[in-house]
Amino acid sequence: MHRIDLRLGERGYPILIGAGLLGDAALLATYAAGADLLVVSNETVAPLWLPRLRTALAGHRCGECLLPDGEQYKTLATLGRVFDALVAGRYNRDCRILALGGGVIGDIAGFAAACYQRGVDFVQLPTTLLAQVDSSVGGKTGVNHPGGKNLIGAFHQPVAVIIDTDTLGSLPERELRAGLAEVIKAALVGDAAFFAWLEEHLGELLAREPAALGEAIRRACQIKADIVAADEREQGERALLNLGHTFGHAIETGLGHGQWLHGEAVAAGLVLATRFAARCGHLDHTAAERVRALLERAGLPVAAPPLGATRMLALMGMDKKVRAGQLRLVLPVAIGRAVCTTDYPAAALASLLAEETGTGEP
Amino acid sequence: MHRIDLRLGERGYPILIGAGLLGDAALLATYAAGADLLVVSNETVAPLWLPRLRTALAGHRCGECLLPDGEQYKTLATLGRVFDALVAGRYNRDCRILALGGGVIGDIAGFAAACYQRGVDFVQLPTTLLAQVDSSVGGKTGVNHPGGKNLIGAFHQPVAVIIDTDTLGSLPERELRAGLAEVIKAALVGDAAFFAWLEEHLGELLAREPAALGEAIRRACQIKADIVAADEREQGERALLNLGHTFGHAIETGLGHGQWLHGEAVAAGLVLATRFAARCGHLDHTAAERVRALLERAGLPVAAPPLGATRMLALMGMDKKVRAGQLRLVLPVAIGRAVCTTDYPAAALASLLAEETGTGEP
Repeated sequence: MHRIDLRLGERGYPILIGAGLLGDAALLATYAAGADLLVVSNETVAPLWLPRLRTALAGHRCGECLLPDGEQYKTLATLGRVFDALVAGRYNRDCRILALGGGVIGDIAGFAAACYQRGVDFVQLPTTLLAQVDSSVGGKTGVNHPGGKNLIGAFHQPVAVIIDTDTLGSLPERELRAGLAEVIKAALVGDAAFFAWLEEHLGELLAREPAALGEAIRRACQIKADIVAADEREQGERALLNLGHTFGHAIETGLGHGQWLHGEAVAAGLVLATRFAARCGHLDHTAAERVRALLERAGLPVAAPPLGATRMLALMGMDKKVRAGQLRLVLPVAIGRAVCTTDYPAAALASLLAEETGTGEP
Repeated sequence: MHRIDLRLGERGYPILIGAGLLGDAALLATYAAGADLLVVSNETVAPLWLPRLRTALAGHRCGECLLPDGEQYKTLATLGRVFDALVAGRYNRDCRILALGGGVIGDIAGFAAACYQRGVDFVQLPTTLLAQVDSSVGGKTGVNHPGGKNLIGAFHQPVAVIIDTDTLGSLPERELRAGLAEVIKAALVGDAAFFAWLEEHLGELLAREPAALGEAIRRACQIKADIVAADEREQGERALLNLGHTFGHAIETGLGHGQWLHGEAVAAGLVLATRFAARCGHLDHTAAERVRALLERAGLPVAAPPLGATRMLALMGMDKKVRAGQLRLVLPVAIGRAVCTTDYPAAALASLLAEETGTGEP
């Protein structure tokens, strides 16, 4: 078992990575802490992994709340169902929510934990690669609004992230690839050596070789943990982890939540961010091509859908990084390093988007 | 103008009390801070006080979101309407919400501010006595669930509380009296001299004598500010401000939110808490009678509705102060001092509730 500590003082917690952890009764007992438990999961994941968890939690009072599966259900209405389950089960402020599933489940369950009785504890039990390497770590929780991704939410740190790598065995191919988009993003933001490692070991990852997956998860979590520890509330450096996401969120919202997987939209967004950085002279063209090539080898979309520049710019205007009317963009400046900047020509952004996504004219 | 500073380090803020403050352009400019503004108010308050505010804010970009009036609308669904207004108006993370209204508006607008883009600034502009002396101060925000009051929410401090005492001129009599319940509660929890002052000056308060109202607001806010500064997240002492509220919330939920005003339920709750404290030997009977008499003179209900002991106990079990299955009660031990305790006989609580609210048998 790997252990990474996210150092946030009294809000700090461990990220534990290993095969079979959802069945480790002693480990779970540590983080269940004698509390009344509510597992929040979805109709796809629960049949696969809830039995293992239930067996390990035998003897604990443990209810469940199963939500429909998919980004299109990451809404205020679905959040209300978690509150209904908590109230119906008469859970008190000392209860604990267990989020068993992918990023959508983690985000909804974490947000429910942030708000129920003004804050209860929760544990992340991510079952998708994307959730394991990215969304379960760092305490960003929330739901979507029809007008934009993650517009409603809270910073609320879990008390632990427990990653059972066995869960990747049941993950659909498309979701595995989507998770790799966030792995590649992490390397591109913070670790050139890891990026080179990914170029070398991508085949093993796609073949789900356990040692390679464990190593990729560990290194991606370490990058994220270091950045979050330095900037929990995204006053600065943490925004770098949004590389590709301003474009990606616009794609997801533009297509309708649930059409493309989050990781797929991020992949196309990484290509747009990288191309734009190269065009503005922030990044050399060879590096930009390495990024595109790696994403393509991972089977991810490297071309944005034809939403049109006007629509894309309007959607990007809802990004949480807009300040005083100016959209700050995260741009890579080298493999392993990114910046958050308003130092780019607005006209160049519009023309790149017109080339890559169309003008929006019929 | 009175000024009280709530000392919470970087989350600290001023509470400003005076006649005409909603029309003070210079003051509002300080706390509007050049941001895009959204006023959240309701259909009762807006026609009365929004024009004064709009005039003072001339030149600012300022949208509005008007909600229906009443505790029964303090729901997740109404909260969604504030998010819709924020997204439709393309508000960014550096926007600022102005909560113009009573406790319901302050709680909803503050919770929306806590969650929109994971947290934006807001200013409390309370227009009811209850909101001015209690709910606008201290950063508790949230909405109700059909199963209980304020079960969904966040701690999110405003950047200022601006109390225009002129607004009390348009307050319905019933709401003025409801606000006095929280004033009496504050005195009972923290300031015996203020309690005696209230006994002496109640007539002036009911006659809406401005100097008396200003003094009552100032002293009640000071008591609350001191307690919140010592215990922002209610780990200890802050729970004392919930005196009467465990009973009161059960009454509100039991009758259906919006039937009794919050302050009315708190008044009946204060009588129950006081009687129970006297019965358990925590409080002398003379003091208990002083509390009941003052509430009665204020025209507040001093008898609980006949919900029945079984129902009351079930509703009280959803209280946020339940820990490890044990309901902690706030009980007065003297005029000006209360404790939060599990040191009471459960049977005595059940029998008091049976006497005061009926057995629930037909």
